[in-house]
Amino acid sequence: MNTERFLNQPSAWLPVDPDDNVTISSRVRLARNRKDAAFPGWAGEDECERIWEELREVLMHCATLKGPMAVGMAELSPLDKQLLFERHLISREQADRKKGSGVVLREDEAVAVMVNEEDHLRLQSMRRGLDIVKAWDVANELDSEIEKKVDYAFSTQIGYLTACPSNVGTGMRASVMLHVPGLVLMNEISAVVKGMAKIGLAVRGLWGEGSEATGNMFQVSNQMTLGEREEDIVANLEQIVLEIVEHEKNARLRLFEQRENVIRDHAGRAMGILSHAHVLTSKECLDLLSDLRLGVDMGIVQLQGPEVVNDLLILTQPGHLQKLEGRRLKAEERDVARALLVRSRLNRALKKSDKKNHE
Amino acid sequence: MNTERFLNQPSAWLPVDPDDNVTISSRVRLARNRKDAAFPGWAGEDECERIWEELREVLMHCATLKGPMAVGMAELSPLDKQLLFERHLISREQADRKKGSGVVLREDEAVAVMVNEEDHLRLQSMRRGLDIVKAWDVANELDSEIEKKVDYAFSTQIGYLTACPSNVGTGMRASVMLHVPGLVLMNEISAVVKGMAKIGLAVRGLWGEGSEATGNMFQVSNQMTLGEREEDIVANLEQIVLEIVEHEKNARLRLFEQRENVIRDHAGRAMGILSHAHVLTSKECLDLLSDLRLGVDMGIVQLQGPEVVNDLLILTQPGHLQKLEGRRLKAEERDVARALLVRSRLNRALKKSDKKNHE
Repeated sequence: MNTERFLNQPSAWLPVDPDDNVTISSRVRLARNRKDAAFPGWAGEDECERIWEELREVLMHCATLKGPMAVGMAELSPLDKQLLFERHLISREQADRKKGSGVVLREDEAVAVMVNEEDHLRLQSMRRGLDIVKAWDVANELDSEIEKKVDYAFSTQIGYLTACPSNVGTGMRASVMLHVPGLVLMNEISAVVKGMAKIGLAVRGLWGEGSEATGNMFQVSNQMTLGEREEDIVANLEQIVLEIVEHEKNARLRLFEQRENVIRDHAGRAMGILSHAHVLTSKECLDLLSDLRLGVDMGIVQLQGPEVVNDLLILTQPGHLQKLEGRRLKAEERDVARALLVRSRLNRALKKSDKKNHE
Repeated sequence: MNTERFLNQPSAWLPVDPDDNVTISSRVRLARNRKDAAFPGWAGEDECERIWEELREVLMHCATLKGPMAVGMAELSPLDKQLLFERHLISREQADRKKGSGVVLREDEAVAVMVNEEDHLRLQSMRRGLDIVKAWDVANELDSEIEKKVDYAFSTQIGYLTACPSNVGTGMRASVMLHVPGLVLMNEISAVVKGMAKIGLAVRGLWGEGSEATGNMFQVSNQMTLGEREEDIVANLEQIVLEIVEHEKNARLRLFEQRENVIRDHAGRAMGILSHAHVLTSKECLDLLSDLRLGVDMGIVQLQGPEVVNDLLILTQPGHLQKLEGRRLKAEERDVARALLVRSRLNRALKKSDKKNHE
């Protein structure tokens, strides 16, 4: 697979909708397994390889995966694996695998199927913004296509069988990524997180389970996979997300009313540091890009082409950065390369809108 | 006294010499007292007032104080006192006084005489850069002029008598203000400070005794006033300062060789924050201006008119800021006004040299 193409392609999980700048992306993931075959964690390498080849063939002929690309983990360099991981196309766990595991992607990256990660099949459907129903439709369509050719491990009593009991039933995890700096700055995020937990939703960081909420980005997803209909899970999640979006918009308004200088200072400093620093760690960069995005969203910072913030969110990650440079970089080298990339892209975007920012 | 004039006048203690950007200013202060009169701390208000009037008359006719301006502490508003203090023309202690205490200034602020501070007379002579000999010459000249008209309290055995024993003898304190970010960044400053103490020199912060070394500015001065000739004190101090300047230049070179990215990052961030922040405390502002000055000194940051850094060092102080705004400001209001002032001045200075900084 030629992974260079990704460098010029906006990632499927980044928003373009100027009306909703809180919801970043929606995602539905379905865990499925082939009947009469050991789960990947129990199967031997040969069996895994056989299953990967068989399922790859099936997937390459699914209409839902138009323009499909398939690649085995064994064929990917560590850097390319990192790149796919950073684009949310494969998981950290799958990146650690080699022979007998692979991924099939739709050309636009909006649909990806991991084969022999924890389960035989992990179908993922991603959409920009709050579009969880459509994400489910696409996943469902692909699921039906596959089901025509593959016998799934399924119990009429409990539903789809999966390697981990927490996925048994629908095998579905629906999640929405949110950018909520307003709730964080107003110290209201922990109340929201607690509220989510009470109604059975999980709140995680940018990289899913166990990850920190860097850059004020949170992922809200269903915990339950058993005893609920997929349509209900999706509708319920959408409803809750709409409420969080309202909370966030409200927090931003109050923030501006009560602490205008603080919020202008926040966004201004982010712009100042990002456009002038010569050393930037990944974490600081994400946090500052979050502050900058808030400034852009609130009309405080003017950028010629605000999508530069999205581009940078993706391109400043270690894998993308090294791919851009065309070589492996040590951590300190990455921090310097990251700062250079951010500086030049932001200053280009600032050029034409310079006057407005400095008034 | 119309203190508005100060707002457009560069302060006498700020450097203009592009060849020596380490030494900021040189200062000689002489403590003198009138014979047969109680020290100001012991004298009553009436006696103080009489002495202030008498000495003011003498000072107004000294040729060394060309274009003299005299003002009593009682006539000054708290804000104007703050302004004079920030320009190093009066001390914090004198600012607390009212009737019977005053100051006489030379038009260009390079010579100032405090009357009835701790002593009857405190003659101060200030020069830009390393010019301690000349500062001493001017102070000495003024001293001789005064001595023709005023009987000094003087003992042939120990020299000039002063209110505080630590000044007895020459009554002289010679000091040099240095900007040494290189030594600070290379963690060599504490060794230098210890070395100074060993040879009888004191190292203090920007505002003299008991003040912190904000903005990487240190003031080196003689401790001894007894048993040494003035010329020797001055020559000795000058020699030591020359050595510190060499140390600092050396530290900057090594810094650039060993940690170019760090130093570029430092200066870049300072510029980025100063030109974009909307809230700036006095302390942060001083520290960032120090980083920026280092960047300008090292040719890393290009400014159209680098004297803007000096101007801002002075103008961002609380008194100057309020004077510029024409009214008293609360601390939070000052932080906002300070950020606005810095932002607009720096962006003006950046305009023409923008391209170079962003390469």
